[in-house]
Amino acid sequence: MAAIKLQALAEHLGVELRGDGKRCVQRVETLERADDLSLCFFGDRKYRTELGVTRAAAVILAEKDVPLCPVAVLVSANPYLTYARAARLLHPEPAVTGGIHPSAVVAQDADIDPSAWIGAVAVVEAGARIGPWVFIGPGSIVGAGCHVGEKSRLVARVTLCAGTWVGKRVLIHPGAVIGREGFGFAKDGQRWVRIPQLGGVRLGDDVEIGANTTIDRGALEDTLIADGAKLDNLIQIGHNCSIGENTAMAGCSGISGSTRIGSNCTIGGAVGMAGHLTIGDDVHFTGMTLVTRSFTEPGLYSGAIPAMPNAQWRRGIARFRHLDEIARRLKGLEEKLDQTNSEPQQEPE
Amino acid sequence: MAAIKLQALAEHLGVELRGDGKRCVQRVETLERADDLSLCFFGDRKYRTELGVTRAAAVILAEKDVPLCPVAVLVSANPYLTYARAARLLHPEPAVTGGIHPSAVVAQDADIDPSAWIGAVAVVEAGARIGPWVFIGPGSIVGAGCHVGEKSRLVARVTLCAGTWVGKRVLIHPGAVIGREGFGFAKDGQRWVRIPQLGGVRLGDDVEIGANTTIDRGALEDTLIADGAKLDNLIQIGHNCSIGENTAMAGCSGISGSTRIGSNCTIGGAVGMAGHLTIGDDVHFTGMTLVTRSFTEPGLYSGAIPAMPNAQWRRGIARFRHLDEIARRLKGLEEKLDQTNSEPQQEPE
Amino acid sequence: MAAIKLQALAEHLGVELRGDGKRCVQRVETLERADDLSLCFFGDRKYRTELGVTRAAAVILAEKDVPLCPVAVLVSANPYLTYARAARLLHPEPAVTGGIHPSAVVAQDADIDPSAWIGAVAVVEAGARIGPWVFIGPGSIVGAGCHVGEKSRLVARVTLCAGTWVGKRVLIHPGAVIGREGFGFAKDGQRWVRIPQLGGVRLGDDVEIGANTTIDRGALEDTLIADGAKLDNLIQIGHNCSIGENTAMAGCSGISGSTRIGSNCTIGGAVGMAGHLTIGDDVHFTGMTLVTRSFTEPGLYSGAIPAMPNAQWRRGIARFRHLDEIARRLKGLEEKLDQTNSEPQQEPE
Repeated sequence: MAAIKLQALAEHLGVELRGDGKRCVQRVETLERADDLSLCFFGDRKYRTELGVTRAAAVILAEKDVPLCPVAVLVSANPYLTYARAARLLHPEPAVTGGIHPSAVVAQDADIDPSAWIGAVAVVEAGARIGPWVFIGPGSIVGAGCHVGEKSRLVARVTLCAGTWVGKRVLIHPGAVIGREGFGFAKDGQRWVRIPQLGGVRLGDDVEIGANTTIDRGALEDTLIADGAKLDNLIQIGHNCSIGENTAMAGCSGISGSTRIGSNCTIGGAVGMAGHLTIGDDVHFTGMTLVTRSFTEPGLYSGAIPAMPNAQWRRGIARFRHLDEIARRLKGLEEKLDQTNSEPQQEPE
Repeated sequence: MAAIKLQALAEHLGVELRGDGKRCVQRVETLERADDLSLCFFGDRKYRTELGVTRAAAVILAEKDVPLCPVAVLVSANPYLTYARAARLLHPEPAVTGGIHPSAVVAQDADIDPSAWIGAVAVVEAGARIGPWVFIGPGSIVGAGCHVGEKSRLVARVTLCAGTWVGKRVLIHPGAVIGREGFGFAKDGQRWVRIPQLGGVRLGDDVEIGANTTIDRGALEDTLIADGAKLDNLIQIGHNCSIGENTAMAGCSGISGSTRIGSNCTIGGAVGMAGHLTIGDDVHFTGMTLVTRSFTEPGLYSGAIPAMPNAQWRRGIARFRHLDEIARRLKGLEEKLDQTNSEPQQEPE
Repeated sequence: MAAIKLQALAEHLGVELRGDGKRCVQRVETLERADDLSLCFFGDRKYRTELGVTRAAAVILAEKDVPLCPVAVLVSANPYLTYARAARLLHPEPAVTGGIHPSAVVAQDADIDPSAWIGAVAVVEAGARIGPWVFIGPGSIVGAGCHVGEKSRLVARVTLCAGTWVGKRVLIHPGAVIGREGFGFAKDGQRWVRIPQLGGVRLGDDVEIGANTTIDRGALEDTLIADGAKLDNLIQIGHNCSIGENTAMAGCSGISGSTRIGSNCTIGGAVGMAGHLTIGDDVHFTGMTLVTRSFTEPGLYSGAIPAMPNAQWRRGIARFRHLDEIARRLKGLEEKLDQTNSEPQQEPE
């Protein structure tokens, strides 16, 4: 790791330095573990004690927090973003060295840029096109006719099924399966007959796909993950779904076929969506929400019962089963009371 | 892709053609993208505008929709099933060419039919039997003593743990893990001691297993997936479960150990079932339902709170926590009112 | 399989034998399928009929159940634990033979104990250290600088990302991904900018990780899975989480980043936890519970609505949406009735 002077760092990040610009930082670290070559981030006043005694060389923080910091500061309007950039500068992605590992199995007619790396026991099938500085990690499978755009990384053991299209700077984590033939069947009496799935999957630029996440290919048209969308681990995306730009999905969510999600949405963990829905831009769902209808208005939506002591929950559920009856009885009471109250006024007659 | 005359197609499918039988189709396509070699499907009147202007050669549809269609029609009592068959005819599964890729690792005593294909960097362990026209895709692992029946396909990177039995025409998608030693432990004080899992997994004929789905082996007897059952992606099936014939499960569901599900059930996405339950035939659960008891009567069952605006949800949850108290207060009011109403009648005394 | 005399077995297990100590058992079996070389377990009186007619050589059971058993008994205060040990004795883990499969790809500077096995098409990257009697199953990937402690088993197709630390006697099932770069981003306008994830993952001794489970590396510090913790299949553990000793998690659960779970907890299937929570020791959650706040008191906690007939559920949900209004109306009625009841007392004035 090379060290960088704070003055140069501040200029690179476009933020103001208050402190000795000739001091160096070499890595990012927590406030507690920092030493005199460490750069830290402060964004939550819960950690002000740690900030007060940090031995870091410098801390990235907001203007309002400057008085709390005993060491040099990099003052940012968006400290977390500044930290992201600083951390990437100090800890760059490993450079890709072009070549093909001798144990990789590459089809003769695959078109592999010389700057790309094909890792150990990886498989690249017929007609695949691998762009510049692409990293195909060990054990990955790039199916026939796939396209992988420049600087994309398949970390390890990724499966791209035939015909998958991957944009630039896409990051795909181990175990992800892109382009599986989706879950489409017609009924023949009680038997299920598979509908051939002839569409593909198209991942835009700067997309991220988590470990063991699965994205099914479309039936006739493509399943789409738009530029900048970020999907966490163990997510299922059904055939013909479309996920909008910069939409972020936390782990364990499942989206049924043909549902279209807009841009700049956030989908909490383990959210489940029915099929054929339309979710607008800037729509947000909290974790474990069941989505059974379209939501086109921006906003925050929720379902699910948060944890409570089991005995309380049991009583609540028992009542929930009779909620309709409870509501009817309440209405009945209201009517009865209205009648009771109106009767006395008739008494004088 | 070979073209097929509409007359021959109609005969093959056993449906009535209305239009020029000498015209050809070559592929299935959406109504909007169809050209004069395309065959389409129409099943939802939401798309009647697209149907009205389609340039397809022919459309598969129901009798009642014939008047809406400007081109040749294939009239079917079950248009979607007819479409499934037509699509498979026009887009057949790739044929399997027998052989073993040089990079595959195959045990000497594995019994591999000459018509079967063992793909790149696949592993076939001791005593495994691979039937005719089986396709073992790249990176798959077939454990010791496994059986894979004829025409089954392990698409890629599938793991069959030792002793797994796979029927005929089974389709297993990438990343699936069949036959993992299930989650069984005895307690020794606070420590967990593993119960050896000595059963296996048996997949019937025409079963389909989705990407990254996991099916655990039985403790002593086998975990069973019956003929024609279809499992989507990211599903977990615990040890000693049994899934009945033609039962279909959508993605992200989890079934705890020793639960038995009947035939012709449909399990929505992300359904969770407790262990040791019995679910009858023709039982259906909507998505994200929690199943904590047996359901033996056919029917549709549900749980889970569908999404609503977060503020409304918060108020609802706050009340849910006091639902038992609300019900008691309601009962109290009813009694009070009964008393109040009966008192005036006593006044005259 | 070698046979063992009941007398020797009882001594090994430290339990009392009642019956002929010279008889042998060779394997564990169900009560129904047992023959005269079988050892069985009885723990649930639901199976007393099967016990009454079993042909097993011997049955492990509790003192109170001895009268029900027609054959030799091994009487244990914890029959299931005794069974676990007996089953492991009769069905030992396959021994590990040291060596490296010729198809494995092992970095020159990897430090591999001669007693360890590196399986077919496995990859061991630079600087990895593999301890004695470790089993690296086929298709597994051990990233640069990983440590795998003695007697640990990566069953097959496991991915350890760079720098992962694995203790002793750890069992990792196929498809698991340990050490993926976690889901951390800063916002730059609408775009997400990745936060480099520079911590690692540390698995303690005797940990078990299920098939296709994913555990993300920490942002700066390590994600920790403590000694004896057992994780089932398809679980997601976010970055910087900590799972305590002997805590067991059932399948399909997802834990968001920086949540700390104590020791001796049980987490039911498909439980979802928000991030940055603290869960104490001996806290238990039933299946499909949503955990949105910290729980530090030991106890059993629940959420989720169990399945009910769809029509009943629909009515209940419709009322749930108005639960706040229902509660307000109830309060209104109570006040009205209080007033009504107090009014008559004022009438005499």
